[in-house]
Amino acid sequence: MRLEDIMPGAIGQRLAGVDPSPVRSDLCDATVAVVGATGAVGLELLALLVELGVDPSRIRAIASESSIGRVVRAAGCEFTIRGSADAHDVDVAILATPADVSRQLAPALLADGVLVSDNSSAFRNTAPLVIPELNPGVLGTEDRLIASPNCTTTIALTGMSAILKAFAPASIEIVSYQAVSGAGLDAMRALLGETRELLEERSSEPRWLSHPVAFNAFPHESAFDPASGQCEEERKFAREAGRLLSVPAGVLSATCLRVPVLRTHTLAVRLQVSESVSESLVRERLATAGGVRLVDDGPSSHEATGRCEVLVGRVRVDPALGSSGSVIRAVVAGDQLLKGAAWNALQNAALLLRRPGNATSPG
Amino acid sequence: MRLEDIMPGAIGQRLAGVDPSPVRSDLCDATVAVVGATGAVGLELLALLVELGVDPSRIRAIASESSIGRVVRAAGCEFTIRGSADAHDVDVAILATPADVSRQLAPALLADGVLVSDNSSAFRNTAPLVIPELNPGVLGTEDRLIASPNCTTTIALTGMSAILKAFAPASIEIVSYQAVSGAGLDAMRALLGETRELLEERSSEPRWLSHPVAFNAFPHESAFDPASGQCEEERKFAREAGRLLSVPAGVLSATCLRVPVLRTHTLAVRLQVSESVSESLVRERLATAGGVRLVDDGPSSHEATGRCEVLVGRVRVDPALGSSGSVIRAVVAGDQLLKGAAWNALQNAALLLRRPGNATSPG
Repeated sequence: MRLEDIMPGAIGQRLAGVDPSPVRSDLCDATVAVVGATGAVGLELLALLVELGVDPSRIRAIASESSIGRVVRAAGCEFTIRGSADAHDVDVAILATPADVSRQLAPALLADGVLVSDNSSAFRNTAPLVIPELNPGVLGTEDRLIASPNCTTTIALTGMSAILKAFAPASIEIVSYQAVSGAGLDAMRALLGETRELLEERSSEPRWLSHPVAFNAFPHESAFDPASGQCEEERKFAREAGRLLSVPAGVLSATCLRVPVLRTHTLAVRLQVSESVSESLVRERLATAGGVRLVDDGPSSHEATGRCEVLVGRVRVDPALGSSGSVIRAVVAGDQLLKGAAWNALQNAALLLRRPGNATSPG
Repeated sequence: MRLEDIMPGAIGQRLAGVDPSPVRSDLCDATVAVVGATGAVGLELLALLVELGVDPSRIRAIASESSIGRVVRAAGCEFTIRGSADAHDVDVAILATPADVSRQLAPALLADGVLVSDNSSAFRNTAPLVIPELNPGVLGTEDRLIASPNCTTTIALTGMSAILKAFAPASIEIVSYQAVSGAGLDAMRALLGETRELLEERSSEPRWLSHPVAFNAFPHESAFDPASGQCEEERKFAREAGRLLSVPAGVLSATCLRVPVLRTHTLAVRLQVSESVSESLVRERLATAGGVRLVDDGPSSHEATGRCEVLVGRVRVDPALGSSGSVIRAVVAGDQLLKGAAWNALQNAALLLRRPGNATSPG
């Protein structure tokens, strides 16, 4: 384990454990703009495109005005940052940008015929919201904009997708162990910097939040809503998983905490189903699910780091108390920057390209 | 935040937020042996006794043969380690020792008229198992040995004690964020050492478990039982909380993970009760509970570190799905070395001394 292997854009083996061939095939002749390419998710998008074998000449690394001309490295390749004007003549743009930037950029890109896969919250209530392992069918033939869910929702539901497709959920509860990467590169650097200060016996000053993050677990820092007793991260899960699964938000619950981990979210999932299911059936479904690896030992956040695949372990199935169904419990771990963001957005970009009218012409 | 303030035995303010007067009064004239005084829990016991104002001449710091004569510091006081023979003429011995050592020492101490408060798992199924905030009444007038539950169980049930005493639980589920201190000083040093190596860009080698602990969240390392799908830590919760609350183990569930935190356990608690209760009633009970602080913001593991009090936050009350009861959710944080071990064992020692036949004569 080395720090440089964990940082965004590192040389790695992100695709080990997933089948990249459909995405590779959809992208092979396309030109792709990665917007927000200097951020943690943007760097991972560039690295994924390199690992997929996309010709670097077909990749545009786009960021804000102030970064134009800067060179970033991803998976060993160098990319010179270009301005957003250069995103208007590609086949597909992947937006790893804040919601307000996505809201501003997407309409103009669509107007210029560019397909848009957005990773922000901007279009999660209006555009098709897709996790390819769970609900690719919601993408209509006319859709040209696709949204990815929040990282926590994506990782939790990808981990349980094989079960969720087989059995209607009566309720889903998640308790999260969230990496700081969800708050961006600066939060990752804050965790490293504060930890270094503490270990060097210097006084450690909080530099990201108002309290320390080094060796600290704490409730998610997103805006707290006293009326519901939930923070925005918890509300996102109820809202987005409700939309993805067509279940009322009232049967969904999240309790979200940050832990001093760099880039993998771990989730304790409790899924209640109305049917009585056996543990062997649950294991069989998980073992054959795409994008998921069923592990006997673990999962640890370390193992999931740098991988597109989502790890699932500690699977238990108990009879539901006071009803005829079952409670399925599991621990799910996924890289927040990959399946939680870059990989899902790239899979979604491939889904857009795959539809009949959008296939790029070979050569 | 400074590392030296977090390490066992540091100068601190452990009793801020709890009412120490009953324990102080019970202990004031007693002679107390702390057995296992060189370990993390032992050092915290010594520090607590110093903070309570117990005269150091009434405190014996006891450890194994190889440590005799060594000087340890706790809360600014020095203690010279003595052998276990010196535990046989005190009023009460607090055992911060592994279960096998407790099993060996306790009978001889009891035979010599010494009261025993044990912190290990040795007597949890046979002796009165007590959390003073929850079930002090189970201690009989003839009992001379008392056991403390596992740290996770103690912190979870202390946090919710005011609710558990008012409403019978239909089910309790906990998901834990466990500090490494539960595995002792060596595990704390391993977390610090591995983290330091990683930050210094050196190759970081696991030194406690077979996998890294720095910046890593992972399922609890205790023995995994494939039949139940649970590790021993999870089984302890079901067994011990079942005994403490007189409920069947089947309504209790724990999912236990370690996080890279030094000494505070955080727990996401889901408590279902058969009655319909209001959030305001739950908050009122928590706000007036002994040993507990209801917080609006947090709790973070950092805030709970070095304190005997248990912090409770993120309280939510929802109607139970498909039944007439309520689901109470909260995040509980408590110092594993204090309320999870040393403080509960010391409170239990005071309970033993308080009973009529055991009061020490003044002066």
